[in-house]
Amino acid sequence: MLVFVLNAGSSSLKYQLIDAKTSELKASGIVERIGIDGILKQVIDENRKLTMEASIPTHKEAIELILETLIHSDTKIINSIDEIEAIGHRVAHGGEYFKQSTLVTHKVIKKIEEAIPLAPLHNPANILGIKICMQLLPNVPNVAVFDTAFHQTMPEVHFLFPVPHEDYSEHHLRKYGFHGTSHYFVSQQAIKLLDNKKDSKIIVCHLGNGSSICAIKDGKSINTTMGLTPLGGLMMGTRSGDIDPGIIPYLMDKKNMNTHQIIDYLNKKSGILGISGISSDLREIISAASEGDERAQVTIDMMCNRVKKYVCSYAGLLGGVDALCFTAGIGENSDIVREKVCHNLEFMGIELDNQKNQIRNHQIREISKDGSKTKIFVIPTNEELVIAQDTYNIVK
Amino acid sequence: MLVFVLNAGSSSLKYQLIDAKTSELKASGIVERIGIDGILKQVIDENRKLTMEASIPTHKEAIELILETLIHSDTKIINSIDEIEAIGHRVAHGGEYFKQSTLVTHKVIKKIEEAIPLAPLHNPANILGIKICMQLLPNVPNVAVFDTAFHQTMPEVHFLFPVPHEDYSEHHLRKYGFHGTSHYFVSQQAIKLLDNKKDSKIIVCHLGNGSSICAIKDGKSINTTMGLTPLGGLMMGTRSGDIDPGIIPYLMDKKNMNTHQIIDYLNKKSGILGISGISSDLREIISAASEGDERAQVTIDMMCNRVKKYVCSYAGLLGGVDALCFTAGIGENSDIVREKVCHNLEFMGIELDNQKNQIRNHQIREISKDGSKTKIFVIPTNEELVIAQDTYNIVK
Repeated sequence: MLVFVLNAGSSSLKYQLIDAKTSELKASGIVERIGIDGILKQVIDENRKLTMEASIPTHKEAIELILETLIHSDTKIINSIDEIEAIGHRVAHGGEYFKQSTLVTHKVIKKIEEAIPLAPLHNPANILGIKICMQLLPNVPNVAVFDTAFHQTMPEVHFLFPVPHEDYSEHHLRKYGFHGTSHYFVSQQAIKLLDNKKDSKIIVCHLGNGSSICAIKDGKSINTTMGLTPLGGLMMGTRSGDIDPGIIPYLMDKKNMNTHQIIDYLNKKSGILGISGISSDLREIISAASEGDERAQVTIDMMCNRVKKYVCSYAGLLGGVDALCFTAGIGENSDIVREKVCHNLEFMGIELDNQKNQIRNHQIREISKDGSKTKIFVIPTNEELVIAQDTYNIVK
Repeated sequence: MLVFVLNAGSSSLKYQLIDAKTSELKASGIVERIGIDGILKQVIDENRKLTMEASIPTHKEAIELILETLIHSDTKIINSIDEIEAIGHRVAHGGEYFKQSTLVTHKVIKKIEEAIPLAPLHNPANILGIKICMQLLPNVPNVAVFDTAFHQTMPEVHFLFPVPHEDYSEHHLRKYGFHGTSHYFVSQQAIKLLDNKKDSKIIVCHLGNGSSICAIKDGKSINTTMGLTPLGGLMMGTRSGDIDPGIIPYLMDKKNMNTHQIIDYLNKKSGILGISGISSDLREIISAASEGDERAQVTIDMMCNRVKKYVCSYAGLLGGVDALCFTAGIGENSDIVREKVCHNLEFMGIELDNQKNQIRNHQIREISKDGSKTKIFVIPTNEELVIAQDTYNIVK
């Protein structure tokens, strides 16, 4: 069954066309700068990559353009649009209502709209993507897959923030967490690698431009570092992560910033970019550090220390760790980060094999020492495959 | 040498009179509601406790009243004010300038004034206390002992926040930490209990109405949970501690709060009080939980989980723990909290002896199992004694 997987952002669209039964990726692409100038980059396979610039004023034209190229005689990825049997949509925020992937109905759209205040940048774009697909492909079922759903198993003691309780009971102020599809996919792979051990205790470090860590007990998320918003938890490319909350009103008063400006400051000017003053891309920071830039070295150490601190705190919550998993851009590719995170954790049973850690490939691999109580894995994430499979399971 | 130890707050004054050579406590007391109606409560020893109400319009009258009662014929604590040989002042914030206790000069007062923006409630009261003492006892030397000084050994990688670096380099925005005098005192006791082990790795949990945890390597603070302000880190009586920073502008927009109101919300309405809806006093929450109040139970679990998470994260930073110490009101008295914090941490070498943990007294005591890699201690804190001894060592 061919599933069209769509991730609609405010000025971009990512898609993959996946055969959900065989997990085969048929094509993938991204449309950027929608409403600005419009660029489509499409990958069919290693040998067939396409970049085209076009006038793409709205998301509708973007999706139309993607569908056209899929059936175009040059690519022949599919012969007809009718071969698409279902559409899976990534939706950022499902609030407390959505605890799993769901077939889209008008009621479902209404519920996703209700969660807009919790994800004001993402949910409107996600809804737009759904509505356009319903219009362009009226006979194809749509499924919404939520970035928050996997974390809905968190117990109250972990999802409540220590603020007045009525802000939860009346205003839904709580930890939701994100990257749920990735944490689910990676933890499921890890459970297989642990021979389906019962009551497994797993920590997944999803480290990319956005980063979060998840503690997973017996397959269920019990805590994660992102909170009400994707600003919480770890230090990221341009996001601060958790800081002393007293800093925020202090800075707003001192620099005469309003809420819009402090959101911008913490989300776009902080993190790796803010400390290094160089870039939000850790690869550039590692390169600068290797050339002797001291602040670049401090940036790497700060970022890795924060990952280490959360790993250890979640190890404590779980009462030990069967598998520590690294995934996403940084997690899959940076042996330096993995080494720094695992350094000196032998006392809690986490022993990295430095040689295995340095092997670079795109496969699932174990990088812990033989005999390490905690297995350490690198597991490439595949959120689109989860979306395709969830969609398939719902519409089949 | 008799040292008068003074802790001046905005509307209260605490004092102790200590023989710094013998560590003997001669008298202690507190003046509350200065400028309102004024109450002095004084303790000379178990049998002699005094409470008096008087018109105490300013801090000057409060200190005069304390000094009068010390030489009053009813108490005869001292025969003459001249017996006071030095005065030690607790000062909340020493900024980056003060790395240790310091003899007060006019330049020192100026430097403490410079740190007022970092502790707008505390430093002005501390300065007032110093100036009044200089006026009332012009021939007695004053020493300033800073709550931040012990943490000045933190490395950059732990004291920087992941925000634009110029806010540190230009505006001194960094982690300072508090409770330094307590963390110092308790860690020094622990080092003695470890037979002066070299490169000792100690974690101190100072759990009171205000709470913080400190990671101490070889006697030096390397990280602590409070930040620029005392709002950071743990969930406290009425303070939230660290939360997703995205919550703050979200709440300010949603509830139309200004910076003053959000500071009040996070400092005075959150934490144990905010979640339980009952009280900021953990004893009342434990009592309510034992009567079946579910939110009280959630409150206790949230508070203890956050302590556990920081203990484990600092264990990771230190690469293991020689001694885990509990101190201050909750840390010294709540076996329930200590049990919950240490629960399930055997995998990292932390093994609590449940029977020893339940013994209640006011002594230093070990509560770990024989053979636990990490020793667990209850160590009553004594910040005033540190202030007296620092003062003595500087003026002797």
